[in-house]
Amino acid sequence: MNAEIIAVGTEFLLGQGVNTNAVYLSRALASLGINVYFHTTVGDNRARLMSALKTALSRSDLIITTGGLGPTVDDITMGCIAAFSAKGMKSATSALSDIGKYFRKKGMARMPAVARKQALVPRNAAVFRNSVGTAPGVVLRHGRALIMALPGPPREMAPMFEDYGAAYLRENCCAGACVIKSRTLRTAGLIESRVNNRVRDVLSISGDTTVGIYAHPGNVDLRITAKAVDSRRADSRICRIERKIRQRLGDHIYGIDQDELEDAVGALLKSKHKTISTAESCTGGLVSDRITNVSGSSGYFLMGVTAYSNNAKTKILRVPAGVLDRYGAVSRRVAACMAKGAQRLSGSDIALGVTGIAGPAGGSRKKPVGLVYVSVVNGAKTRTWEFRLSGSRKDIKYQVSCLALDMVRRELMVTR
Amino acid sequence: MNAEIIAVGTEFLLGQGVNTNAVYLSRALASLGINVYFHTTVGDNRARLMSALKTALSRSDLIITTGGLGPTVDDITMGCIAAFSAKGMKSATSALSDIGKYFRKKGMARMPAVARKQALVPRNAAVFRNSVGTAPGVVLRHGRALIMALPGPPREMAPMFEDYGAAYLRENCCAGACVIKSRTLRTAGLIESRVNNRVRDVLSISGDTTVGIYAHPGNVDLRITAKAVDSRRADSRICRIERKIRQRLGDHIYGIDQDELEDAVGALLKSKHKTISTAESCTGGLVSDRITNVSGSSGYFLMGVTAYSNNAKTKILRVPAGVLDRYGAVSRRVAACMAKGAQRLSGSDIALGVTGIAGPAGGSRKKPVGLVYVSVVNGAKTRTWEFRLSGSRKDIKYQVSCLALDMVRRELMVTR
Repeated sequence: MNAEIIAVGTEFLLGQGVNTNAVYLSRALASLGINVYFHTTVGDNRARLMSALKTALSRSDLIITTGGLGPTVDDITMGCIAAFSAKGMKSATSALSDIGKYFRKKGMARMPAVARKQALVPRNAAVFRNSVGTAPGVVLRHGRALIMALPGPPREMAPMFEDYGAAYLRENCCAGACVIKSRTLRTAGLIESRVNNRVRDVLSISGDTTVGIYAHPGNVDLRITAKAVDSRRADSRICRIERKIRQRLGDHIYGIDQDELEDAVGALLKSKHKTISTAESCTGGLVSDRITNVSGSSGYFLMGVTAYSNNAKTKILRVPAGVLDRYGAVSRRVAACMAKGAQRLSGSDIALGVTGIAGPAGGSRKKPVGLVYVSVVNGAKTRTWEFRLSGSRKDIKYQVSCLALDMVRRELMVTR
Repeated sequence: MNAEIIAVGTEFLLGQGVNTNAVYLSRALASLGINVYFHTTVGDNRARLMSALKTALSRSDLIITTGGLGPTVDDITMGCIAAFSAKGMKSATSALSDIGKYFRKKGMARMPAVARKQALVPRNAAVFRNSVGTAPGVVLRHGRALIMALPGPPREMAPMFEDYGAAYLRENCCAGACVIKSRTLRTAGLIESRVNNRVRDVLSISGDTTVGIYAHPGNVDLRITAKAVDSRRADSRICRIERKIRQRLGDHIYGIDQDELEDAVGALLKSKHKTISTAESCTGGLVSDRITNVSGSSGYFLMGVTAYSNNAKTKILRVPAGVLDRYGAVSRRVAACMAKGAQRLSGSDIALGVTGIAGPAGGSRKKPVGLVYVSVVNGAKTRTWEFRLSGSRKDIKYQVSCLALDMVRRELMVTR
């Protein structure tokens, strides 16, 4: 079974958006053992979408479209797909009722008339419900091919594919295929070339198992990909390589696949029955935002203070004015005092203090943009690190949040 | 002139990379007035790349390929392009000398034999030199079409396109061409179908100016795109439509293009000489993180408190324990008390209080996941709003941060 993914949206052709749906669906299809041979992107234009669909039908067994299911006049995907069958369109009852509920939940008694359009689907289609937004998806047969239409917003597309699309494909077209599986090992605290040096010999393993290194701001990922006749065999190939890599990188690996540092920190806090609080300056609340992205974080996260002004540092966190005067707000001492202040204020076991210069303004020769201090207090023990980073303001904030979370993670690993 | 961009690389079809080259080239071509009608991605497979090139030649005047120019056996682009002409391939002297220099610079006296392959180009092609890596690019005519081949790594592709590709296109196919420009108007506080209803007649303006609506979590964008013989005329077309849309949407429009709500809030705080502080519960610091993403925010942002525990709410923000007991942490009263507490603590002019249930756990029938209260204090005045949102934990957090920032923006607009 060969698949093609068609993204519908003029914004992509203008370079005003990245087609992350193709990335998501390609991975998902690979894990189902379905080869993806083409990605196509086409604008919100009826003639060109029809021609792209025709080309796809001539070369692919499965066509998945994303986008163009909205309520407005430039949303044309459903109409184009319906045009391939003589049966016309129907209003899907389940979708209409979902759309009604969606608007009632928003506190709107009457559904806007234009919203009804989204319930119109090809008469011969099976309907996928949308748990996040209003546009339903569909799947239908056309000759020997399957056409599946999914919404464009990734947060609607992904759950719909998981809940309905993948299940449909598993039942209807995955017999006898081979499986491609992959696992990503996520590392912190090593730059790409260091990671590369440590695992170089593993990288050159060829054949049906490959390892790729991908550097991101704040962390480096290693992706192991294995192809095999079944899922069990692919898993065992991945495990063999994973063991080797784990020997080389040890606790630099903080998680797999979609795991974030805050997930690792959260799991450690939970298992060790510890609580945490934060005192941030240059990260502006990003660390506490990330910690609270984890469901259940209210069990261990007590409080965060974004002490941007010196007044907030002295008044709320009780950083001594003398320390601020003598060492400056961006200093090892102030980072430690901020962490201790957060610990005192919240009564948490562990506390984090972060101060630095995120830029682009505010740097000096002695204290340049990118200079950052991170302090971790654990009980009566305090440790502080200095970092020098580069990048845009947002890049630096994000890198600092990764370093800070990683320092907490390392502290927790050696805590009973 | 209609263009198509073909990315060559199996990694994209496995979902192991994002095609950022298509984004870059689409923007670059738009600014040259060249319409991009299709993006195609195809693997490192000769038959399928040949078929993609044939399809492209049947519908496009300009085909730009990226990738597949490396030295290894799975790099097939140059050979496929050469196959369209009967003239065969040649070794490009300039490229061969560049490759030699590249290896000498790396301290390698002898060029690896495999590297010579990269100098092989179609005999009828003009060669683009690679200032970063070793693979040269080419451009050649095939019938009425132009085919341009660029390297895959973005850091090689972009400078080559800028130095050679864009210049070539400007000279050879932009005479009498037109310019495509676009502007995005960003709105908050209206859902997509409401925006659509208000501007419906503007949307159906056809011809050389189009308007598209794009819904994101927390905001809705309107993108005006105009095509004209020169930049000035394109701008004037955009302005005409923009005026109409602004009449309909008024202060729901908070910015253009890359503007975020925090930029709009920051600009208002600055111009009105006001300061702000935040007290967040369910957003976990995301609002203060966003406010501090703006360079210069230390001039108006004093402090943020992420009061996750009830203890933090009473101890730091002085939310009366009686109010917490009687109304619960997620209530109109507590949101207001949090905002007032932040104002008292920091001495800011304006303060924001946010409390709600981000989910997925923690909801009840009376207080479901997605129930949120946002309170804005301005001097002695307090206003509080209730919202009901849906989505994942992160989605809800982000939507709340947008609503909160928008409420502050609206408050500031009517503040002297």
